[in-house]
Amino acid sequence: MKSSHTEICLDLIKNRRSIRRFQKTPVTSHQLALLQEAAELAPSARNEQPWFFCAIENQEIIHQIEQLAEPAGNCYNAPLLLCAFADKKALEPVKDTVFALANIMYTCEAIGLGSCYINFVSDVFNCPAYDKLAGALGVPEGYFAVGALAIGVPAEEKPVPTDRKKNIFSIVQEDAQ
Amino acid sequence: MKSSHTEICLDLIKNRRSIRRFQKTPVTSHQLALLQEAAELAPSARNEQPWFFCAIENQEIIHQIEQLAEPAGNCYNAPLLLCAFADKKALEPVKDTVFALANIMYTCEAIGLGSCYINFVSDVFNCPAYDKLAGALGVPEGYFAVGALAIGVPAEEKPVPTDRKKNIFSIVQEDAQ
Repeated sequence: MKSSHTEICLDLIKNRRSIRRFQKTPVTSHQLALLQEAAELAPSARNEQPWFFCAIENQEIIHQIEQLAEPAGNCYNAPLLLCAFADKKALEPVKDTVFALANIMYTCEAIGLGSCYINFVSDVFNCPAYDKLAGALGVPEGYFAVGALAIGVPAEEKPVPTDRKKNIFSIVQEDAQ
Repeated sequence: MKSSHTEICLDLIKNRRSIRRFQKTPVTSHQLALLQEAAELAPSARNEQPWFFCAIENQEIIHQIEQLAEPAGNCYNAPLLLCAFADKKALEPVKDTVFALANIMYTCEAIGLGSCYINFVSDVFNCPAYDKLAGALGVPEGYFAVGALAIGVPAEEKPVPTDRKKNIFSIVQEDAQ
């Protein structure tokens, strides 16, 4: 890969931040198709591809999901809430689906959309009291909720963070023995 | 983001494949520093950053880990085995650490390294019989293994896959009710 490509790609990773303020502009069907294509290409154990995504643009349904959480959750008025589900019978459903969510997150960054990982949404979908909700939104039977992304055009700019933990690597070198 | 940037970034995501054949060239300390920087920048629940990575270049130790697995595992003769661990006390240790692994995976792609997710390594580290192994390699106490990446300069080229599952999205539109 050319060195200018390398720099652009590293910038993509460095510049991605969790965005919690969005413009009202809807996510277009072309953008949604790019997110889907990226999700499809994630790696998975035994190539099971055990993921499913529900792209909710309906603000009333998003609001209902926020209200069903205890305490009530916040999807930051994002125009799109992308909920991720995984096949219960897969070998590594959570890890595989988080890799697919990462693909979506970086594709957002590449096409000018912001995103924020939202954890409470999976608690709502996985709550036995609301076990009909996912099916009503088109999720296949036998899938459980893994997480969600609030997605939209950013209405805030955030610098590269300066609060990162250091000393997160140990290195075991060739001549260590 | 400029449109040429968008294209380069989407290519990054599309072109990443699981690489299982590596050249013998070691991963340089500069490359390792870039991987660490990328890992630090991953999102995490409550910004806990509950990850730790052990970068094993020592081929004898990698071989031992392969042999400790049942059945024996295969790290594909990669010059670097990057093992990921997470703090047991964190809110979402697995999801957070997989996001950090995804950052590492794409940084690899950006700087000309290949990677393959390896699952069996975490079984070895998490096996009670080998509970001293992680500590001996510099992993802090209270962390468990999440997964690993085999990393090195690719010795194979793979096209964009054509075996992806379709119909992985349901769309709930604004006017759906």
